[in-house]
Parts: sequence; C-alpha cells; structure tokens
Amino acid sequence: MEEMSQVKGNRLDPWLDSYATRAHGLRASETRSLFAVASRPEVVSLAGGMPNLKDLPLDRIADATAEMIRKDGGKALQYGNGQGLPRLREHVTEVMALEGIDAGADDVIITTGSQQAVDIVTELFIDPGDVILAEAPTYVGSLSIFSTYQADVQHVAIDAHGVIPEALEEAILRTKREGRTIKFFYCLPNFHNPAGVTLSEERRPLVIDICRRHHILIVEDNPYGLLGFEGQTYTALKTLAPDDVIYLGSFSKIFAPGYRVGWAVAPPAVKEKMKLASEAAILCPSSVGQYSISMYLEQFDWKKQIGEFRTMYRERRDTMVGALEEYLPVCRWNVPDGGFYVWVGLPEGIDAREMLPRAVTNLVAYVSGTAFYAGGKAGQDHLRLSFCYPEPVDIREGVRRLSQVISRDLENYRLFGPTSYRDSLGITAPGPDQV
Amino acid sequence: MEEMSQVKGNRLDPWLDSYATRAHGLRASETRSLFAVASRPEVVSLAGGMPNLKDLPLDRIADATAEMIRKDGGKALQYGNGQGLPRLREHVTEVMALEGIDAGADDVIITTGSQQAVDIVTELFIDPGDVILAEAPTYVGSLSIFSTYQADVQHVAIDAHGVIPEALEEAILRTKREGRTIKFFYCLPNFHNPAGVTLSEERRPLVIDICRRHHILIVEDNPYGLLGFEGQTYTALKTLAPDDVIYLGSFSKIFAPGYRVGWAVAPPAVKEKMKLASEAAILCPSSVGQYSISMYLEQFDWKKQIGEFRTMYRERRDTMVGALEEYLPVCRWNVPDGGFYVWVGLPEGIDAREMLPRAVTNLVAYVSGTAFYAGGKAGQDHLRLSFCYPEPVDIREGVRRLSQVISRDLENYRLFGPTSYRDSLGITAPGPDQV
Repeated sequence: MEEMSQVKGNRLDPWLDSYATRAHGLRASETRSLFAVASRPEVVSLAGGMPNLKDLPLDRIADATAEMIRKDGGKALQYGNGQGLPRLREHVTEVMALEGIDAGADDVIITTGSQQAVDIVTELFIDPGDVILAEAPTYVGSLSIFSTYQADVQHVAIDAHGVIPEALEEAILRTKREGRTIKFFYCLPNFHNPAGVTLSEERRPLVIDICRRHHILIVEDNPYGLLGFEGQTYTALKTLAPDDVIYLGSFSKIFAPGYRVGWAVAPPAVKEKMKLASEAAILCPSSVGQYSISMYLEQFDWKKQIGEFRTMYRERRDTMVGALEEYLPVCRWNVPDGGFYVWVGLPEGIDAREMLPRAVTNLVAYVSGTAFYAGGKAGQDHLRLSFCYPEPVDIREGVRRLSQVISRDLENYRLFGPTSYRDSLGITAPGPDQV
Repeated sequence: MEEMSQVKGNRLDPWLDSYATRAHGLRASETRSLFAVASRPEVVSLAGGMPNLKDLPLDRIADATAEMIRKDGGKALQYGNGQGLPRLREHVTEVMALEGIDAGADDVIITTGSQQAVDIVTELFIDPGDVILAEAPTYVGSLSIFSTYQADVQHVAIDAHGVIPEALEEAILRTKREGRTIKFFYCLPNFHNPAGVTLSEERRPLVIDICRRHHILIVEDNPYGLLGFEGQTYTALKTLAPDDVIYLGSFSKIFAPGYRVGWAVAPPAVKEKMKLASEAAILCPSSVGQYSISMYLEQFDWKKQIGEFRTMYRERRDTMVGALEEYLPVCRWNVPDGGFYVWVGLPEGIDAREMLPRAVTNLVAYVSGTAFYAGGKAGQDHLRLSFCYPEPVDIREGVRRLSQVISRDLENYRLFGPTSYRDSLGITAPGPDQV
C-alpha cells in the first residue's frame, strides 16, 4: 500500500505524490476551521485586520471612477507595464515623502498588495534553509510566505521600543557561528503587527549599523506608518540606509485593500530583479486598480482622509484599552500609538490557541499569538486583538465576552491544572481574518 | 577581489552575493531592450498579444462600475476571500459551460490573471530539476515561470493538429529512462500561443490516455478557447478527465486584461493547496476587479461581445494571411482558426532573433521564435506575428516592412553566407510586448 501511494497518490488526492517539497509547508491557518463560525454576525471578531472603510466617500469615488473609465478606459482595461503605471509611481513618492522618504518614481515597483512584494523578495533571496531574521512576534502573512520558500525564521526579541539591538546582534552572531546564511532581517518598525509597538528613533541607527556591519539586507514593511494617532511619523530605515533596505508600502490601510495595490522601493539592481520576478508571476499589476488609485490621489483630499482614519482608529484604540482595563485586569498589554492592534499577554495557565474554540463559542474571536511565530512554536501566552474594524460598542462587548472565557479558563486551571495542549498546528496561510 | 565580491556584492549590486539560486534564472526578455524603440508610434508592432478593446462599450461600463461601487463599494474595496468572490465563481462556471465544461463554483479558484495560476501550479509541483513537458513551441510567459522554479522543460513536437501523441509518449518514456521525474504536461490545446494550431478532437482522448497511463498531471491553459473564428469550440481535456487536469481560464481575452482576473479549476485536493498558495502570495485577488467582472457578466451581453471580438479578429487574421501571401511567399505559415497568432517559418539562412534589431529599425516588430523555447535553444527559424491589436491597414504595412527586411537578409545570406548568431540570451520574463 505504501508503495502504491508513492506511485499513484490516493483517492482523496491522486496527485499527493507529485507535490514539490515546498508544498508540504502549506497548511490552512489555524483559525481557518473556525472562520466559518467566527464570521457569523453574532460573533464579535477582534481577529481581523480589515481596515474600516465606512468613512470613504463611496458616491464620489463611484463618480470619479466612472469618469476615469470614460477617459482612460482604453488603457485602464489593458495590460500595463510590469513595474507599474508611471503616474502612480510618482504619486507613491509623494505618499512616502510624508514619512521623509526621498525616492524617485523609477525606484518604485507596484505590486499586488505589499504581500506580493514580500513574496517576490523571498523568492529572490531565499534558498531552502536560508535564515530570515524576524521580530518575535511578526506578521503572520509574511511567515506564511517564508514557510513556502522553506526559510528558517529566527525570531529576535522585541520590547516596548521595538526590536532590541543587542538581541539582533546576538542572533546574527549565533546564526553565523552555526554556519548558517542570513539573507535578510524582516522588520515592521511602525505600529507593529501584531505587537503594536514602534521601533524607537534611538534604536534605528543602531539596527542599521548592526545589519551593515554584518552585510544583512533589511526588509522594512510599513503598511501602517501614516496611521500614527497623533499624526506622528518616524524616520524610515530606508531613509537612514537607502542601499541596505527594501522598503514596502501599501494603499490597503490608508485607502482601500480591494484594489490590491502596494509597492516596494529597492536598491536599483534589486528593483530590476523584483520587476522581472513580478512580471513572471503576474505579467503586470492590475491597470484598473492602478488608475483608480491614481485618480483617488489626484482628485481627493487623501491626506485629510488619512487624518480622519487616524481619529477613528484612535477612538477605537481608546475603547479597547478602556475595556481591557475594566474587564481584563489579569492581562498585560501595550497601548499602541498607531496602527490596528493590541498584543495581550495572558495570565499563567491560559493557552491562547487552546482557548480559541471556547471564545468563538462565547461569540468572540481573536488571533492566537502562536500565529505570529514560525511553526507556531511560541506565543501561546499572547493573543492579538484588533480594534480597527468593529464598532466601539462591539469592541467593548467583545472584550467583555473574552473576559468571561478567560475567567472560566483560569478557574479551571486553578482547579485542575494545565490542559494538554493540542498538537502544534504549524504555520499557515493567513486568511482575511488574520491580516 | 573575488572573495570580496562574495562577501560584499559589488558597487552595482551590493546584494549580488545574496540572491537565491532561482534568481539567477531571471533575465530580461530578449526583446525588452528593443521595447522602448518598438513602442514608438511609427513602429508597427506585430509583437504584442494585447487584446483589442476598441469595441468595448466604455461609457456603459463606466456607468455600471459607478453603480457597482455605490451599491457594493463597502465590499468591493475591502479584502475578499482567498478563493475568490462566490458570485464570480458561479459566473465562471457559466463561461466554461460554453465549452462544455461541467464544474461547480467551489471547484473554481480566482487568480490574478491565469498567469498567477501557472505560477501557483508550478510552485506547488516543481522542485528544482523536475521535468515539465510542454509543446514545442509554448507560451513564453509560462516558460518564464518554469525557469524561475528551475524546472527542466522538455519540449514535445506539435504539428498542424496540435501535440503529436507519439511524440508525447516518446518524451515520457525517454525522460523516465533517464530517471527524471515528470510533474506535469503543460498544454495549450486551443488556438495555440504562439503556434496558432488546435489540438484535434481525435487526439484529445489519446493525449489523456497517455498521460493517465503514466500518471502525469495535465495543465490545460485555455485563454483563447472562446475565440474560434467560426464560433466553434473544442472538447476540453478537463471534460475528458476531470481528475487528471488543472484547467486555466482568463477574462483577459474575452473581456479585458486590466482587471487581472483569471481562474483555475483543479481536482479538490489540488484546489485547496492552490488556494493556500495564492493566499500566501497575495492574500486575495482584487475585490474591485472581481466585482467589476461580475457586474459586466450580469449586466452586459457578454456572449454577443465575444461574437463581435471573433468577427474583428477573424478579419485581422484574413488581412494578415493575405499580406503574407502577397509579400512573404518565401515563408511558411499556418492559418489559425481562432486566437491571436500566426507562426511564421523563415527561409533557410534567416535567424529571427538576429534579424529583430533590423526589423525594428525598419519600423516593424515581432517576437522571435526563440522566446517560445526553454533556454531560447530553438525557434530561430520562426517568428510570431500577432494580428490582434493593429488595424488591418497597419497589419498589411507591417508585413510589407517585414518582407523588406527578410529580402535584404536573404540577399546578404546568398552573398556572404550565415551571420554569426548572437550569444544565446536565455529565457526570460515576458513583457506586455510578448504575452
């Protein structure tokens, strides 16, 4: 039978024997099986990273889109070039200038969301077994890509001020001593997903200096950089070290994700290779998407809109932190000054992954901290709560329901001791419930 | 110096030493350097595979898009699910039904153009060195993907009736004798790009039977299937062998490529893996693109539109074949009964790749046959002419200009013998000039 299945797959999957090695790393997100339940309207989802679009002026966007198609439809409905629409790349430089990044339109490559940019960078640099350094925790969507390319992700400790420089250097030295090849340091410096922290200005030159000394490329993923709640921005790593950083940006959080338009800025030779890799994968990014975003940036007061987003998200952050103080004093959390997420530390005896089905039964969803560690091998003592999408009243109610579940679990722990954890489920393609 | 460059890259590319093995296969398309020149308005381009969108009712599409954004904008501008919009997947089953394919909406996965579907399939199945069987010649865009994943492409001979079953079996036996692993047969059965031929109905069950006996998966790429000039369609390989075929379709040629929406239908277990791989790479396909196409299929007479496309392309095919008869009797060509392309065999002594710069200087562009062979190792005796985009008067003029260049090259060949061919340039990401 064993031999048979080697040759012919099996009835469930006749092609089981044919997959590439990398395909075995693909598994459904650990919350996927709960997603059908968690997306029911009676469940408060504090899991998803979906931006809140209710303040976008849909009527005016509809009219302007129609006008764009009337005027530019012949081009907007056609194939475009692999690097992206030149006009949009100009706009991207204006967006980045708000964070002090100085780049030319030719340095920019447009991608299918910044997710595709992470995919291309990983494709270009990672041979199986190569090491990627990443914060502990880090973005689940990138972990999923790193796993596909069979990278060995080594996590680097962070604290309230972002990645710890000494920990970074130590990880580099340790990895090098083991004779391993480090290809890049993947870093979310601003309003971290999931940790909610920001790399301090003081540490930024230190991080650059360490990576430079060890000739390690930095991949700076910055989808939330303009969503600082006080309007504050931080010095981009790209600004400090243009030749050592691939910078990734996105319109998903400052406008809308449905167009799937993000971008990368890379050193010239790397950018050329990224362009070729993107052309191979998708020929070109969506022209309709690019023309639409270009239209939006030209005809709408997008900076004011970002200001309104900030205000909305700040209010939700305040609601969530208030609810945590009221209902979950047994937990620890950061107070993020931008972005979408609060990273909640659980009391001893609570396992975030193991508790999730009970939370969903109690009509509240979150993402277990294990999703943000390679192989799901840590993070069971944390969970990520998103305050971006639900209404404030639902945020409060969600935290209240969560507190009921945690209280019950704590009670059981005190009475019966630790439960046996479920098998480690591994990492994982993220769903829209996790981004 | 050598050691230095191993450690530090070089000034042109400080990260030269860091790329993955697969990145070395990425090279610019061989026509890329000519593209800036070839896209000048005075050049007649018979190179590009861009569909001709002039007959699309842009005004009505503009209005309907505005209405869609007003009504569904909250969802169309948001993240969607990784498999694609359920409503659009239903529509896709209706489109496929026109070719007799019986599939359910849950069998369909929406991709960023069918190019992304080829990318995902290759990612899932190909370990470096694995063999992909492909027609000789085959689609340049897929060769570019296969090269990225370090596949070994083995070409299988075709004739006027498509792939030759005996050649397919022989290639399988030869490859197996060498101890190599064949992962799939990549096949463009209808209105082949670039060869313009269609796999005959008689051969289809033979091809299926051969692949089945050797347990070889078939990837059926079918972007042009509804563009038969007499309205004829052919039995899909997918219909003949649902469990043995991954079917790829696209809206790029029957509606518009600017939305970047294609799809795949795969056996259930393979489809699940494709969904995970797509989510890893891009999270989800563009919601705006999917809602737009869904709107188009619901509100427009898209079948009539396809009929109009057929008529337009048939006229252009007639113009091109007429011009070839008039100006290039020294060449051989097929008369395609659908699709976009004529595959032109050159007289002895003419090298398509080597001649291209002279053609562009004479204000006509084509794609050298070498682009359609792995490694560019064959095909110099053919070129691909596209009749889809230029106006008939330009098609005639383009063929006339081409005949001048060929005449001069032939004259030189008779006087001086063969020119030395340029170094083999390898394969290559396709540009929008080549698709």
